[in-house]
Amino acid sequence: MPSGGCSRVDGLPRVAIQAMNVGIVGLGAVGGSLGLDLRAKGHWVLGASRQAATCQHALACGAADRASTDLSALAAAELVFVCTPLAALAPTVAALAPHLEPSTIVTDVGSVKAAILEAVAPLWPNFVGGHPMAGTAESGLAAARAGLFAGAPYALTPTESTPPASCRQVAALAESLGSQVLHCSPQAHDRAVAWISHLPVMVSAALLQACASERDATVQPLAQTLASSGFRDTSRVGAGNPELGVMMARYNRQALLASLQQYRRSLDALIACIEREEWQALERWLQSAQAIGSAFDSRGG
Amino acid sequence: MPSGGCSRVDGLPRVAIQAMNVGIVGLGAVGGSLGLDLRAKGHWVLGASRQAATCQHALACGAADRASTDLSALAAAELVFVCTPLAALAPTVAALAPHLEPSTIVTDVGSVKAAILEAVAPLWPNFVGGHPMAGTAESGLAAARAGLFAGAPYALTPTESTPPASCRQVAALAESLGSQVLHCSPQAHDRAVAWISHLPVMVSAALLQACASERDATVQPLAQTLASSGFRDTSRVGAGNPELGVMMARYNRQALLASLQQYRRSLDALIACIEREEWQALERWLQSAQAIGSAFDSRGG
Repeated sequence: MPSGGCSRVDGLPRVAIQAMNVGIVGLGAVGGSLGLDLRAKGHWVLGASRQAATCQHALACGAADRASTDLSALAAAELVFVCTPLAALAPTVAALAPHLEPSTIVTDVGSVKAAILEAVAPLWPNFVGGHPMAGTAESGLAAARAGLFAGAPYALTPTESTPPASCRQVAALAESLGSQVLHCSPQAHDRAVAWISHLPVMVSAALLQACASERDATVQPLAQTLASSGFRDTSRVGAGNPELGVMMARYNRQALLASLQQYRRSLDALIACIEREEWQALERWLQSAQAIGSAFDSRGG
Repeated sequence: MPSGGCSRVDGLPRVAIQAMNVGIVGLGAVGGSLGLDLRAKGHWVLGASRQAATCQHALACGAADRASTDLSALAAAELVFVCTPLAALAPTVAALAPHLEPSTIVTDVGSVKAAILEAVAPLWPNFVGGHPMAGTAESGLAAARAGLFAGAPYALTPTESTPPASCRQVAALAESLGSQVLHCSPQAHDRAVAWISHLPVMVSAALLQACASERDATVQPLAQTLASSGFRDTSRVGAGNPELGVMMARYNRQALLASLQQYRRSLDALIACIEREEWQALERWLQSAQAIGSAFDSRGG
């Protein structure tokens, strides 16, 4: 096996990564991209997928050194990324557990953390919750690409029961891919992504639904013809993967509902402003939105 | 003066455009872009702005052949584009009228049409309502660019009192810039842009306002750090020019309120679905949003 690489991320200590046996369960866009980058860094990548065709594809495109439909093929892994959809995460860890050494670190890439940790930590104590904020518009292995994680935030959500050395190991691996690693509680993570990821999906989907309610035979096609980049941008995430949207709502239900209810209050204030023709108040409200947008732009990844 | 160019737009008749004296009042992003393209087509462009510095800039950057702070300088214009903000449109036409020949065609580029036509048509009967669906994120002459209108829809909203020859003349000029000209009633236009332009601005601004309501000292900066392209796209138009947003709401109030109320109903249905944990219904709703998004993508400009 080649010797391990070494990576430096600004503001973070230099971390030497020894080449490892890394397992990846779920060879989709994220799992496949991890495989491409980890192999490029000299790690030995053991892939697993329910589909034999996906395993073949992963070997052919260089996303894994070995790939199997059988989870026992990951027995030699020192660290396993579980990259399945959220609903399959806990069952996958349960199925995987009998095949692993107790020293094996298991981590995930799911967009919700509290519910996942609650379900998975009892199944595998050596578990580190993770969420790389890197995605692709498309799903599946065909959408995998090298360098997907470079420059993107990568949240880790250790709890009191998470072994600190395991968290450091996952952090080092993520940093070696160019990610900006940050640590937070699962609860803070879930509230934050409810605001900036899950709420936008719902707001954007509701925009598409509202537009489709127009029944006038002239106005509906006219709206479609006149729609330009502003509409496309605002409606893009609402037209994304429906299954993923359901998972966000199921597994982050409480935080998403709180965000939606606050959003509805913002909308109600806006509607009242326009109904009452309070144009100065509306201008202040839009100026404030502009300032909030700038604050996000200057912080965002 | 150079002889006029000739332009062919797919599906439209070949239209020969004689070189004309074209006036442009308001030398911002849209007015300036019109000036650049019209001069390139061989027209003689007479610009007007309230700011002497803007007049100088327009001459320097090639957006006008002559530029003045005095509307009487547009006396020789055969066709005038009024490119001021919506609130200044009717006062500008009133101030311009004494200087023009009755044969002069006046048109505008405002994003609302019914209220504008109601105010402007009595001031200048030879008026053609227009709305090029081409904009820039920035405003002002510095944001002007050649080719802004190429490939973009350009709505014209003639009424029973609009001289048909004047409408044809504006259409020919717009087509010569590469625009896809379409005709509709001012009312249909305003309902369509309420859905695809004005509602998205409000939906997107409400998203920013809702996110800013998060007061937790950990969650707020975490949300800003984790926000990525999905959030930026969904919130972009909500962080746009506040004055323009107020104009949309003032001049298209009725259509915008109808769209906002329908949007709130869509949002309420969604919230109820998540509250009741009706995941199959949520999946169908998101699948339907995805299909609506595809319909817009296949039609949109």
